[in-house]
Amino acid sequence: MQLLKDRIIKEGRILEGNVIKVDSFLNHQVDVNLINEVGRKFKSLFQDVKVDKILTAETSGIAIAAIVAQYFNAPMVFARKTESKNLDKDTYTSEVYSYTKAKTYKIRVSKKYLREGENILIIDDFLANGKALEGLIDIVKQAKASLVGIGVVIEKGFQEGGRKIREKGIRLESLAIIDSIEGGEFRFRE
Amino acid sequence: MQLLKDRIIKEGRILEGNVIKVDSFLNHQVDVNLINEVGRKFKSLFQDVKVDKILTAETSGIAIAAIVAQYFNAPMVFARKTESKNLDKDTYTSEVYSYTKAKTYKIRVSKKYLREGENILIIDDFLANGKALEGLIDIVKQAKASLVGIGVVIEKGFQEGGRKIREKGIRLESLAIIDSIEGGEFRFRE
Repeated sequence: MQLLKDRIIKEGRILEGNVIKVDSFLNHQVDVNLINEVGRKFKSLFQDVKVDKILTAETSGIAIAAIVAQYFNAPMVFARKTESKNLDKDTYTSEVYSYTKAKTYKIRVSKKYLREGENILIIDDFLANGKALEGLIDIVKQAKASLVGIGVVIEKGFQEGGRKIREKGIRLESLAIIDSIEGGEFRFRE
Repeated sequence: MQLLKDRIIKEGRILEGNVIKVDSFLNHQVDVNLINEVGRKFKSLFQDVKVDKILTAETSGIAIAAIVAQYFNAPMVFARKTESKNLDKDTYTSEVYSYTKAKTYKIRVSKKYLREGENILIIDDFLANGKALEGLIDIVKQAKASLVGIGVVIEKGFQEGGRKIREKGIRLESLAIIDSIEGGEFRFRE
């Protein structure tokens, strides 16, 4: 998606540990016009599949998934990281290891909102090592729902998450795959 | 907003401590069609003001603010609760006391994304004691931005937050104000 790549080149910054900072449009300030184009793109990429529900995880995926869900005319569910009075006790739960925080956390979805046989499209902002997505995939499996695909805005192609997910036969569409960031320059996969 | 009130009556549940659970459409599963109507309504209520930016806080406000921001053709910024590599060191920070969790947490917005003189509309899912909104109001003040109003989806009218915010002369629009939940029934303010 050229519009997105242009924006990454223009505003993205590379931090220590190969963290890609795009907080001006994706995960702190959110450019809703750009995310609308992201939604339109995912709809065209997944136009052949029936999507009953969009699934994402706290926190950065939520704004994107909400806007994307409009294009599929489907409800959006976000997995919660924290226990909350607003969350049922009866949840699908998975553990996610965070490399940046060097600890494991849990994500939870109420069993009411993922049903057996539903067609689920997972949406997230970033894919690096894939641990967060693995947690969401696990939750979809626990619910005996059907994972029709995963849509990611930015994939760090130099980390292993994308390859591992594709090797499982899961349909993964990333709108920008960054293959290297050497010398402070983003190189995208064609 | 009748559509919203009907939905609260149909699906809302009342938990211990007067917690109102609407996780089937507002803050776990999100009905994006309903939230689109919410966005349309806020746009009509605030049609007379110029809005440069929508501000909300993690977590439950994000999906709503993202969709509402489309109606104002403005970027959305969400205050972060956790420190993150994706967040600048240079932030506006405020402390928020959570009654449900009985502890104080910080919310942070990068100084880059709130500028002096910008017209800010704050959006959130719930207003009860108003502590989270007070934190956001404080951040807008620190930035010397201009708070044009606050839009809340559900206000618990039997708690003091709404009254205190209105007494400050801040324009507050709540789409459903629940004045009592006695006997397990929602009574809305006219």
